[in-house]
Amino acid sequence: MTRTSRRLGDLAEFVGGRVVGDPELLVRGVASLEAAGPEELAFFHNARYRAALERTRAGAVVVAPAAESTRPAGASLLVADNPYLAFGRLSALFQPAAAPRPGRHPSAVIEATAEVDPTAEIGALAYVGPGARIGPRSVLRPGSIVEREAVIGADCLLQPGAVVRERCVLGDRVSLQPGAIVGSDGFGYAFDPAGPAHVKVPQAGIARLEDDVELGACACVDRATLGETVVGRGSKVDNLVQIAHNVRLGAHCLLCAQAGVAGSTQLGDGVILGGQVGVVGHLSIGDLARVGAQAGVMDDVPAGESWSGSPARGHAAWLRSSAAYWRLPEILKRQQALERRLAELEVRLARAQPPEAEPSPRSG
Amino acid sequence: MTRTSRRLGDLAEFVGGRVVGDPELLVRGVASLEAAGPEELAFFHNARYRAALERTRAGAVVVAPAAESTRPAGASLLVADNPYLAFGRLSALFQPAAAPRPGRHPSAVIEATAEVDPTAEIGALAYVGPGARIGPRSVLRPGSIVEREAVIGADCLLQPGAVVRERCVLGDRVSLQPGAIVGSDGFGYAFDPAGPAHVKVPQAGIARLEDDVELGACACVDRATLGETVVGRGSKVDNLVQIAHNVRLGAHCLLCAQAGVAGSTQLGDGVILGGQVGVVGHLSIGDLARVGAQAGVMDDVPAGESWSGSPARGHAAWLRSSAAYWRLPEILKRQQALERRLAELEVRLARAQPPEAEPSPRSG
Amino acid sequence: MTRTSRRLGDLAEFVGGRVVGDPELLVRGVASLEAAGPEELAFFHNARYRAALERTRAGAVVVAPAAESTRPAGASLLVADNPYLAFGRLSALFQPAAAPRPGRHPSAVIEATAEVDPTAEIGALAYVGPGARIGPRSVLRPGSIVEREAVIGADCLLQPGAVVRERCVLGDRVSLQPGAIVGSDGFGYAFDPAGPAHVKVPQAGIARLEDDVELGACACVDRATLGETVVGRGSKVDNLVQIAHNVRLGAHCLLCAQAGVAGSTQLGDGVILGGQVGVVGHLSIGDLARVGAQAGVMDDVPAGESWSGSPARGHAAWLRSSAAYWRLPEILKRQQALERRLAELEVRLARAQPPEAEPSPRSG
Repeated sequence: MTRTSRRLGDLAEFVGGRVVGDPELLVRGVASLEAAGPEELAFFHNARYRAALERTRAGAVVVAPAAESTRPAGASLLVADNPYLAFGRLSALFQPAAAPRPGRHPSAVIEATAEVDPTAEIGALAYVGPGARIGPRSVLRPGSIVEREAVIGADCLLQPGAVVRERCVLGDRVSLQPGAIVGSDGFGYAFDPAGPAHVKVPQAGIARLEDDVELGACACVDRATLGETVVGRGSKVDNLVQIAHNVRLGAHCLLCAQAGVAGSTQLGDGVILGGQVGVVGHLSIGDLARVGAQAGVMDDVPAGESWSGSPARGHAAWLRSSAAYWRLPEILKRQQALERRLAELEVRLARAQPPEAEPSPRSG
Repeated sequence: MTRTSRRLGDLAEFVGGRVVGDPELLVRGVASLEAAGPEELAFFHNARYRAALERTRAGAVVVAPAAESTRPAGASLLVADNPYLAFGRLSALFQPAAAPRPGRHPSAVIEATAEVDPTAEIGALAYVGPGARIGPRSVLRPGSIVEREAVIGADCLLQPGAVVRERCVLGDRVSLQPGAIVGSDGFGYAFDPAGPAHVKVPQAGIARLEDDVELGACACVDRATLGETVVGRGSKVDNLVQIAHNVRLGAHCLLCAQAGVAGSTQLGDGVILGGQVGVVGHLSIGDLARVGAQAGVMDDVPAGESWSGSPARGHAAWLRSSAAYWRLPEILKRQQALERRLAELEVRLARAQPPEAEPSPRSG
Repeated sequence: MTRTSRRLGDLAEFVGGRVVGDPELLVRGVASLEAAGPEELAFFHNARYRAALERTRAGAVVVAPAAESTRPAGASLLVADNPYLAFGRLSALFQPAAAPRPGRHPSAVIEATAEVDPTAEIGALAYVGPGARIGPRSVLRPGSIVEREAVIGADCLLQPGAVVRERCVLGDRVSLQPGAIVGSDGFGYAFDPAGPAHVKVPQAGIARLEDDVELGACACVDRATLGETVVGRGSKVDNLVQIAHNVRLGAHCLLCAQAGVAGSTQLGDGVILGGQVGVVGHLSIGDLARVGAQAGVMDDVPAGESWSGSPARGHAAWLRSSAAYWRLPEILKRQQALERRLAELEVRLARAQPPEAEPSPRSG
């Protein structure tokens, strides 16, 4: 990590924020509230960590305007409208990604017909198949695998154990965390009762990740049966997420860990799926829709809506129903009490006023 | 992909279907409704895609008899009773799997005591451990690993990063997608309060996949504590599925993505688990049982039944209860209204007819 | 597997149990109730397997005191207070883990500045990055990867395809099952509406696994944004579990398969998460808390409590509510019946006693 020092005032200007305290403070790096020292910048964003803020030894803390009054003793504040974004940019400023080291490790295997840009870095025990292309400044970390005729754009990063299967395509600045899989066969079988057997339907399409996509560790994107499975530009996919064949994600989606999207479902732009969300196949999820953790989506979600629950519906309705769920034993008891009281009333009324003269179409 | 052209009439005969339109049409391949051209065959199976069917430029479309009336202008139809099965077979006809290229890549490591059939293909940076056996025409793609004394049958395919641990057994025509794991240790610990420590129970058994099994990307099949974990012949397991130690799957099961089966549970033949289903340990799931997506199975499921929900019960009951779940706030409101109205009645009746003379065994 | 024979009486003494039957019986190994022969020891722990117990040909069976009366014909019993723990120890006695074979496979890549203890075993096609350290008797199975400056303690085991990313730290006796990932980037992005883009927040911290931790196949532990993600000593993590950035697990936790813990959440000591449990971020789960399978934890869990459901609450409350859930259609019907009966009463009472004179503050 580089440790160039920078003026706090300059850092504030860099992110469009302002300083409360000493703009001349020299900052050498970023650290957590707990670990930061007087030459480091920390970050406060969640009221749960107020005690850590009060105790911090950080020279400066990035905060939202609403937290301006909470300045800890001895620390300056860098106030930013979007403190997490500001902090992310400052953190990247102090910890720039390592530049690729052009060349190939002698243990890497690059097949004769592969085209590897001379500025790319091919790590130890990595593999580049026949006809595959690796773009400028892309890095294959040790043990990553690019199968035949796959295309990797510029400035991509494949961590150890990442796999891109044949003919799949990565745009520029795509990042695959360790064990991420691109282009596995979709789960397509047709049942033949005469076998009986599940007959495999060829998964002859590809998977394509557009520019600036990131896949988490052991995230899986299946290739299409025909055509393409697509993860749209700027979309970020967390660890252990499943994206099935022929799914299409728009731009700037966020899929949190262990979510799964079944075959042929389409997500618009800016869709957010919480952790462990499941979405069944052949659905359409509109732009900017949000789905709460563990929800099970079984219907199209209109653009801009927030859904939760399994099966999922509107988040506000889910809040009410899931609160009422915990009152179910009480509801049952109250229902029994009502039945008792009503029966008593009926008995009393029957004694006072025998019902034989009473026509009641409902009692039939 | 081969691009031999074939008569549509011959294709219909091959799958036991019939042609509506031109049986002389020459077909050169398969493609999606959107992408297919006049020499290609597409597939229609879901009313959601009717607009794509109407716009298709495909020369012919495989459809079910019920869709015979929807013939798009300019296209012939290949009508089949099971159009997905017919399409799968035709797709395989036009896109046969690549034949293995016998031999080994010079970067592969094959230990001295391994037995590799001369017709097998061992890819770059693949590993075959001591005493392991690789059967005829089986393919180890780059970076796949077969540990010591494991047995791989004939015509198997291990994609990059697939791992078969020691002594595990694969039948014939078994396919492992990238990152699939066979024979990881089961999750077996005995708590010793004297440590305190979770003492590891040796996982000394194996995992065995019978003929025609397919495991998805990053699917995990644990080895047994003692004996065998078994995936029965023809069963298909999707990405990121967990199969714990000593589980036994019958033949022709389908486990959709991210499902999990806990230790020692037995599934019969033809069982289908939807995506993200969880099944607790030591259960018995009967033949042809179906479990809906995200269900949590905590009891034995009788053969042939469909279950849903968490905890899971019959699917029909779940449909009713999950619909009623969303009416819980209304149920609460109606209950409050009932309580108000009943209290009013009680007051009115008490005024009209004081209760002191009223014996009521229920109010005690 | 070694097959030294041992006296049953000595085995009982070794685990603090006692023999019912023949303490002179010679035992050569352990096996399941179904497979064990007269010189083998089996294990009975679950009433579901009583039929197998009755049919067993095992020479001896480890049982709990409560099962002492179920001694099968021809078998001795080894009665232990904690039979699973006793069995685990006896199984380990008969099947000791293979000793590491010091040295390195010629196909392994060990960078010049790495420090590998001479007693460590570096398998085929394994990788040890610059500045990485591998401790005494640790084993890297084929295809496992330790990135630059990572530290692996003593007696660790990395199975094929396991990955430890740069600077991460493993204590002693840590075991990584195949495909387990340590130190993947956390899922940290700040949304910049000016892009629009999800701007990556550098994940500059590390992941640290303390002594005696085990990670299952394809389990993922993200590195911290700043500081450390920690899995406390003795904690065991099952297959396909997600542990996000800056999570801290205490000692001796058990996380069952496919569970997920979101960013910055802290688990105390001895916490148990069932299969497919999800825990949202920034929570605190107290010591010895237990969370039932598929639960979704959205609030802090006090120490010692058992929670279930999604959103999760106390397990006892969940048992009542989830039972009542299946009675929802009945609750609705009974509510409708109450409404009918009440309406009838109201009509009857209105006829008998017109309400105009009745003051009712609730009806306003």
